[in-house]
Amino acid sequence: MNVSVQQAADALLAADDILILTHRRPDGDTTGCAGGLCRGLRSLGKTAYVLENPDLTPRYAWLIAPLAPPEGFVPRFVVSTDVSDRTMLPKNAEGIGTIDLMIDHHRSNPLFGERNLLRPEAGGCCEIVFDVLAALGVTLTKEIAEPIYVGVSTDTGCFKFSNTVKHSHEVAAACLDTGLDCGELNRRLFEVKRWQRVQMERIIVETMEFYRDGKIAVALLRRADIDRVGATTDDLDSIAALPRQIEGVQAGLTLTENTDGTVRVSVRTTKEVDASEICRQCGGGGHLRAGGASFPAGVSLDEAKQRVLAATEDAYGKSGL
Amino acid sequence: MNVSVQQAADALLAADDILILTHRRPDGDTTGCAGGLCRGLRSLGKTAYVLENPDLTPRYAWLIAPLAPPEGFVPRFVVSTDVSDRTMLPKNAEGIGTIDLMIDHHRSNPLFGERNLLRPEAGGCCEIVFDVLAALGVTLTKEIAEPIYVGVSTDTGCFKFSNTVKHSHEVAAACLDTGLDCGELNRRLFEVKRWQRVQMERIIVETMEFYRDGKIAVALLRRADIDRVGATTDDLDSIAALPRQIEGVQAGLTLTENTDGTVRVSVRTTKEVDASEICRQCGGGGHLRAGGASFPAGVSLDEAKQRVLAATEDAYGKSGL
Repeated sequence: MNVSVQQAADALLAADDILILTHRRPDGDTTGCAGGLCRGLRSLGKTAYVLENPDLTPRYAWLIAPLAPPEGFVPRFVVSTDVSDRTMLPKNAEGIGTIDLMIDHHRSNPLFGERNLLRPEAGGCCEIVFDVLAALGVTLTKEIAEPIYVGVSTDTGCFKFSNTVKHSHEVAAACLDTGLDCGELNRRLFEVKRWQRVQMERIIVETMEFYRDGKIAVALLRRADIDRVGATTDDLDSIAALPRQIEGVQAGLTLTENTDGTVRVSVRTTKEVDASEICRQCGGGGHLRAGGASFPAGVSLDEAKQRVLAATEDAYGKSGL
Repeated sequence: MNVSVQQAADALLAADDILILTHRRPDGDTTGCAGGLCRGLRSLGKTAYVLENPDLTPRYAWLIAPLAPPEGFVPRFVVSTDVSDRTMLPKNAEGIGTIDLMIDHHRSNPLFGERNLLRPEAGGCCEIVFDVLAALGVTLTKEIAEPIYVGVSTDTGCFKFSNTVKHSHEVAAACLDTGLDCGELNRRLFEVKRWQRVQMERIIVETMEFYRDGKIAVALLRRADIDRVGATTDDLDSIAALPRQIEGVQAGLTLTENTDGTVRVSVRTTKEVDASEICRQCGGGGHLRAGGASFPAGVSLDEAKQRVLAATEDAYGKSGL
């Protein structure tokens, strides 16, 4: 059943021995939700833990790592935060039965919880958790506000992306009021780059090719370059956003040679071109401004490039530009 | 005299034929303040203009360019926004006498207005103008909110820097409520880069040298490279922030060969090293985390590098690290 913020809070108030779940490949939003909710529930005297997430990286570990349940803990109430589907739960959550309360903001969510609090208009899921904490009567401390702030700031690109809403800023304002050091947090989250990442950005610029009078930019991430630099998947995270940042570029195409021989294509466009149309033609999919597709092993990087370029020219033809 | 927000609003309500001034090398905050205030005053039926600024770049021109006074306009009330000192007014404002109302957030402001509204705690000066507009009884429309939002977002690094305060987010929340497209605005302000800028960033990475186990990074912007790429001063804006973004770097030193043969040093540090101490030793100055110095023509880039490196090692010695 769908529940309101107050109904979600009432269910939590009636419960105890609460276990909170995050999603696979955890980001700042799911860990922020879980960390903030767990600390808020504890401030009310509840027993609450966050299930370990095997994919957790050091970037976000500090938000939930100290909140893991002790051996033998048997939850009596399970909450998922920012999990778009049951299949998105990490492997170690598979034995868990009913999700008593599901809190999320993904439009596609099939409402897999016993109680579902879904608000697709929220920039970060942490904005919903913030409202639940308020309905619970939790006093917002710096310790509770930090994970909430991290969730909102990371999911909205530090309030830069179009998914940022009025409430994102309202939540941030309340968090800053607790005295948290947003400058230091954001430096860690958005500014610091590994040297390997910086090298890959340099290579992207060096190898970039332009077509259609600079409207299309193609960047190639060759396996040999990635291996030579020693870049990890984390180092390549969102690197596909770079070509579209260049003035005049409307379609940024980034091709990556994976270790298994497949070629991944990431497409980022401005309002002039439909990214999902380009990706669909290459056997993939996506949204209006961002999409992806994969070419099977055996298709060379150059062949993949020719095919995605042709699909892009075709998308231009269809849009009549 | 110092005035409150309400007193500033009362003075504006009693006035007409208002001229608003911006500062030299206008940024998003001064143009945002002027554009927002001018539009707000006009919405009340006042005659208001923004003085042309000869240094205006296309980046911010759309915020104030359409509000320039007609030939022969004689102001009866003059307001300066985000101007830290009379000497910071552009040349064409030199003939102007009394500044009837000074609105600013620079701590060092000598209070050069007839009435002074100074709030050093504001992230962007636009936050103060927002409060003045509210006290004036102006209804916030999208047209008025856009310049205000641009001022706050550009002066706080899109809410990322440590000068971001609770009120910065409160103002942004109110601006978003008018329906402005923050995603598109921020893309233009923060994402789009000229190809020349991208090239200079690549060169910075290529030429970077590390000292003290990667704690010190030195980047060299040689005149020959700048000229070959065709980079302008605008393309080099804040490029000195890059070395400090690399993981492990505590002192990022960027040296630029100017056209007149002088060498400019920009120092950015983390909390471990005092940037102003490094710069002072090189004849410059600055703050704890950011500073600069210039070496006269005749000092080579390499010599300048050796001197600023020695000053940095010395600063480490003094901090006992």
